Amino acid sequence: MPNIVLFLSYIGTAYHGWQFQQNALTVQEVLQDAILKTTGQRVSLSGCGRTDAGVHARVYAANAKFETSIPVDRLPLALNARLPDDIAVREARIVPDGFDSRFSCRRKEYTYTVYNSRMKDPFYTDRACFFPYKLDMDAVCRAARMFEGTHDFKSVQSAGSPVKSTVRTIYHCYVTRSGDLLELRVEGNGFLYNMVRAITGTVLYAGLGKIAPEDIPVILDSRDRSLSGPTLPPCGLRLSRLVYDEFTLESPV
Amino acid sequence: MPNIVLFLSYIGTAYHGWQFQQNALTVQEVLQDAILKTTGQRVSLSGCGRTDAGVHARVYAANAKFETSIPVDRLPLALNARLPDDIAVREARIVPDGFDSRFSCRRKEYTYTVYNSRMKDPFYTDRACFFPYKLDMDAVCRAARMFEGTHDFKSVQSAGSPVKSTVRTIYHCYVTRSGDLLELRVEGNGFLYNMVRAITGTVLYAGLGKIAPEDIPVILDSRDRSLSGPTLPPCGLRLSRLVYDEFTLESPV
Repeated sequence: MPNIVLFLSYIGTAYHGWQFQQNALTVQEVLQDAILKTTGQRVSLSGCGRTDAGVHARVYAANAKFETSIPVDRLPLALNARLPDDIAVREARIVPDGFDSRFSCRRKEYTYTVYNSRMKDPFYTDRACFFPYKLDMDAVCRAARMFEGTHDFKSVQSAGSPVKSTVRTIYHCYVTRSGDLLELRVEGNGFLYNMVRAITGTVLYAGLGKIAPEDIPVILDSRDRSLSGPTLPPCGLRLSRLVYDEFTLESPV
Repeated sequence: MPNIVLFLSYIGTAYHGWQFQQNALTVQEVLQDAILKTTGQRVSLSGCGRTDAGVHARVYAANAKFETSIPVDRLPLALNARLPDDIAVREARIVPDGFDSRFSCRRKEYTYTVYNSRMKDPFYTDRACFFPYKLDMDAVCRAARMFEGTHDFKSVQSAGSPVKSTVRTIYHCYVTRSGDLLELRVEGNGFLYNMVRAITGTVLYAGLGKIAPEDIPVILDSRDRSLSGPTLPPCGLRLSRLVYDEFTLESPV
């Protein structure tokens, strides 16, 4: 059976994340239902990562081995006809047998969007975190850079599923601002539970003067979650880039 | 009583336009309810225009004369606490007695967004019109410019409430493209029913080769709705700029 990878984009607001759950609607369940109805195949997709409830994916990869009479290049349109408006298959490809969306992934980039204005803006509801406080942008930008490199990230991990190691490598972590919109982009070889949301919370705390950017290495060394900033809400977070040996998925413009 | 103008922003997806209706939820009704609960005053707002069901407003102005014990500069936060996430009051000001959001408005700009890609994108659901066909961008851009000037716009008006005159002045009408996103911006001294959606439909027809850009003046002269392009769906349309003698409201970045 061919190993088929689907490139997705989804708005996570209505879902309890990617991964199948018994008592909550997830993107995996909705997509697998669409595959069943379209091809007659009951598949179990391997997704590039668990995204949390309410988190979006500008890009996402999920694969499984399954037979289909529909040519692979027509699979996206056939599946989209069965999918709700908040999930789309953008492309489908046959990949080598050993390819796995989760384990073959080399780097992931997440983008966290903050709407930093005194007044809320309905256009950013469910797309950005509304943060109405004045920020020292110089401190914000310096704080973000402090997370780059290979570190133990236990102090920006939420309690949850235990992992063998809390050491990860962050290739870049920087903030850009355009008007009232602030974006933190962080690319790494892996992420801990709620890590990007806690990094962004810590960076905003630096912008408020509650944490000195220079203290972030100390906070990381402490491995103490109580010293870093708050976990921001999921609505501002999206998966924005995926790097595999075979291809790189970039956010469409 | 002071004449108070509220500057709004709203996502129109859930509403049957601005204007109060007996049997459908409108932005005006929701906002007047919030004013009643916040100030105890039953007001009848004058809005800068009827927006159709499903149309958005990046900027909007509505005013009424009413008493409030809350200082005007605190009114936005007080009202926002009572408003749903898809409507926000961004600013409130006291304006001269003769100011009326509708009749004092000199120019309005609408922006129509088209997502022109082979594949749908969940990030633009309810924010753009999905148009998966290949467009001749040169024809698109030339077609848009043909609507500029003072013309009788009857051929891009939908049947509906009768108006005295179908002559309007369009100060600019142009298309920009960034990746798969295409934006048509049109500013005029007034607009007929569904006019921007029909102009955009006509411009896209030019991009498909169904209408020659050079024929648009002929279509306008004909005053015949059947010769122009289709009325596009409301989700791609937003009010993006308002010009008054007293101030100009620009879309926030």
